[in-house]
Amino acid sequence: MTTPLTPGATIGILGGGQLGRMLSVAASRLGFKTHIFEPGATPPAADVAHHVTTAGYDDHEALRAFAEAVDVITYEFENIPTEALDLLETLRPIHPNRDALRISQDRLTEKTFLNDLGLATAPFADVSDKESLATALDTIGAPSILKTRRFGYDGKGQARIMTPDEADAALADMQGAPAVLEGFVNFTCEISVIAARSIDGRVAAFDPGENVHRDGILHTTTLPAKVPSRLLTDAVLAAGKILNALNYVGVLGVEFFVTPTGLIINEIAPRVHNSGHWTQNGCAIDQFEQHIRAVAGWPLGDGKRHSDVVMENLIGFDMDRLPELMADPANALHLYGKADTKAGRKMGHVNRIVKQN
Amino acid sequence: MTTPLTPGATIGILGGGQLGRMLSVAASRLGFKTHIFEPGATPPAADVAHHVTTAGYDDHEALRAFAEAVDVITYEFENIPTEALDLLETLRPIHPNRDALRISQDRLTEKTFLNDLGLATAPFADVSDKESLATALDTIGAPSILKTRRFGYDGKGQARIMTPDEADAALADMQGAPAVLEGFVNFTCEISVIAARSIDGRVAAFDPGENVHRDGILHTTTLPAKVPSRLLTDAVLAAGKILNALNYVGVLGVEFFVTPTGLIINEIAPRVHNSGHWTQNGCAIDQFEQHIRAVAGWPLGDGKRHSDVVMENLIGFDMDRLPELMADPANALHLYGKADTKAGRKMGHVNRIVKQN
Repeated sequence: MTTPLTPGATIGILGGGQLGRMLSVAASRLGFKTHIFEPGATPPAADVAHHVTTAGYDDHEALRAFAEAVDVITYEFENIPTEALDLLETLRPIHPNRDALRISQDRLTEKTFLNDLGLATAPFADVSDKESLATALDTIGAPSILKTRRFGYDGKGQARIMTPDEADAALADMQGAPAVLEGFVNFTCEISVIAARSIDGRVAAFDPGENVHRDGILHTTTLPAKVPSRLLTDAVLAAGKILNALNYVGVLGVEFFVTPTGLIINEIAPRVHNSGHWTQNGCAIDQFEQHIRAVAGWPLGDGKRHSDVVMENLIGFDMDRLPELMADPANALHLYGKADTKAGRKMGHVNRIVKQN
Repeated sequence: MTTPLTPGATIGILGGGQLGRMLSVAASRLGFKTHIFEPGATPPAADVAHHVTTAGYDDHEALRAFAEAVDVITYEFENIPTEALDLLETLRPIHPNRDALRISQDRLTEKTFLNDLGLATAPFADVSDKESLATALDTIGAPSILKTRRFGYDGKGQARIMTPDEADAALADMQGAPAVLEGFVNFTCEISVIAARSIDGRVAAFDPGENVHRDGILHTTTLPAKVPSRLLTDAVLAAGKILNALNYVGVLGVEFFVTPTGLIINEIAPRVHNSGHWTQNGCAIDQFEQHIRAVAGWPLGDGKRHSDVVMENLIGFDMDRLPELMADPANALHLYGKADTKAGRKMGHVNRIVKQN
């Protein structure tokens, strides 16, 4: 695909959660239809999508019909089964590409890729069993953290090893899955960059935000980050390096630890990212539209920040605060329309506009 | 309805055009579903609505099913048949209310209502036939303009009378419809106010914009308007007076002529308005969300302007400029996903961000 998709075209999106929902809204702004592929019933994205296919990733007939009904395929999450992608890519372009998925799906591959680019990560070692964990602990030491190589998000699939005698319990937590041991990083804060690359290779980045987590889930992202501007520039340059190395098309999220010796990359996500939700009320073009522009072959939009924003995730019973949140004129609310409030479930977020620049 | 609708509730929208489309997007942001009622096939709003009923306004069964499936009813256009409203209002609340519709549907009723509130309009007179037109011309003189009392928009149903001998031709243009003769107003420019009123009677207004028309259709809205601030205040106060007099709930558009002797109201529209599209890129809460907030019983949001914006409508083959429009980073595009480009058809708009304040 070298010419931009024209209004009326259909963007296929794998995954129908809140990211798919907000991607659908952005696509509609540019005159596109969206078609969601999602195994679960009544996904949040269905409320604003032109079409929804409810089927599993092993349903080749449904995958084929989905691909044939759309002009380009993108996704809201990285853990898409390989066989499904093998089929889909024979039928339509997939952005971001398979390399980006392959690398970001596996913590070991990802960290190796980043180190090969000259980008710093926490020290790490491959762990497949008791013996390799013992060897890894010898090199990396404790405290450290054991993580499954795949399918980890929001703190799931992780076990801390404070002292070597906790190694067996941590390994048991992995439930036999291949894992990676990561050394603890002594960081002062976490920042992230949401950056985008267009089909013709242009790169644009939103201002880096400062992230605070609670219980392993993103709690707030604050703009501007209170971090020396030299480090913010380093973060943007690192994101650009990754985008170019992957010949990437779309939006990428990169999380960094800020340490006394510089930045260390925590992880990358080949998609729109929770820590980029502030762009909806801080920029003329938000991360969702930027992603749609890129995968549709459009030029990227202007991501300049016009406001200072604090994004706060509304998790589970944070929704009880809705009456107070809706009444405060500094708040821009973004709710996902999920039917049931559950502890730990991302129900929405609020962008608090602190100052208009 | 006195308690705010909670996320997951459904907003029913009469009309599936671009205004319904952008209202649906705003509703999704607050966690609501939308259900569109629209006689035409494949309306623009269908791409982003949870549900669409395709039926005529004389289909009482469809109207009843629609009303029973939603929590509150609103609309994107004012010319809804009275019988349909009579049925719908027995089943669900309709915002804005019937008075607002009754008054804005009829130019004669509207001007009488405004004069009764002490708000200036062009001189006008009721015209039903040759004799009443002659009498009206005696009072108002020429040049003047004959307009159908109902169903006029974007310059349709209007005929100029430059000299009295054009009276017969102008009357013929009305095709027998009741009409109103309006005196020409010597104005320097047109401004409009988009204002909102919540269920508990609070009023908020966006900054007035300056409008330029071409061929009877809105061409641009520019913020800020280059008009003395005293007049901008007058405009906002007039809008507030109208909202309160109507016990109005939702967003109202009011168009004013700026004249050497002050403001004259051109017309009011009981809905989101083309001249309010700039708010999508000029404010944290745009006119569409403000309307949804009001009809859902929520408190109004902050409509403070953070940027100077020029909104330009993309009409018909303006769409040929898309490659250049999408490439300019100052432009925020909003396309309606209409399948066929036709001369005179509103295809989208572009908000050009001139300066961030």
